[in-house]
Amino acid sequence: MAGPKRMDVSFTARATAVGRMRNEIAVDWPAMGQSWTFATDEAPALGGEDTAPPPLALIVAGLAGCLMTNIRMFARKMGVDLRGLSVDVRADWVRIQTGTAPHVADTAGFALDVTMDSAQDTDAQRALLDAAKAGCFVEHALVNAVPVRHRLKTPQGWIDA
Amino acid sequence: MAGPKRMDVSFTARATAVGRMRNEIAVDWPAMGQSWTFATDEAPALGGEDTAPPPLALIVAGLAGCLMTNIRMFARKMGVDLRGLSVDVRADWVRIQTGTAPHVADTAGFALDVTMDSAQDTDAQRALLDAAKAGCFVEHALVNAVPVRHRLKTPQGWIDA
Repeated sequence: MAGPKRMDVSFTARATAVGRMRNEIAVDWPAMGQSWTFATDEAPALGGEDTAPPPLALIVAGLAGCLMTNIRMFARKMGVDLRGLSVDVRADWVRIQTGTAPHVADTAGFALDVTMDSAQDTDAQRALLDAAKAGCFVEHALVNAVPVRHRLKTPQGWIDA
Repeated sequence: MAGPKRMDVSFTARATAVGRMRNEIAVDWPAMGQSWTFATDEAPALGGEDTAPPPLALIVAGLAGCLMTNIRMFARKMGVDLRGLSVDVRADWVRIQTGTAPHVADTAGFALDVTMDSAQDTDAQRALLDAAKAGCFVEHALVNAVPVRHRLKTPQGWIDA
């Protein structure tokens, strides 16, 4: 039998700052030939103009969507009856402010409450949820420490930053 | 001097599966009194109907937006001249498939290339980028291992799953 097959799932994006806090973001999934545009902004209280959701709202929606997509994909694969599915999410970050220094981010964690409309028993639903958690790229990137690299453009070219 | 002040930044969401792979997701930021709706879907090749971007596209856009929002917020705070800002992102996940078992997710990592239009030198731009990285909630949740908890609804009530 062949060993595990590894397939890259790579996205690219170009994001441009416009307005006071608005960002316009073109995202591509080159292997699928797909592209989408997004925008983010902040409320006036945070210096923005509220023309679009804040970045964190996209993260919460992406997390919910990823788990649900995997649940439905694997329900078919595992033969689990699934007539309906909803997920309630709670995302808790913490903003740490010391004096007048720039704030520092912390993450308390994420909680997902899953409701399946299924004729199958709790064990079958649980096995499906376990497979979906393991298959969800967003959950993997959150549950594990993953590398986030940065480069800064300078007159002499790109530098690691 | 008072110690660090910790402020919760909490989002909630309710996501509902509709269509073949489409999810409709209502996200709330209760402390700000703000709400938004999102949708995700997949291409027909992945069992969907391509009515909305896939969840991973939202994650990539949210990551770009979060770093950029922090760069602009801190530019004002730190007095860094910033006339323009763009970020190119690359997100690399890996899908591991063994035989016919459900696939398993892996994350290779994220890379962000930052271009600032600024009269200030590379050191000042680098200090601004460092502050923004530390202040970005999305980067914190990726770079660190964070808890993601799940519960499953059963006829006897919620169970940890």
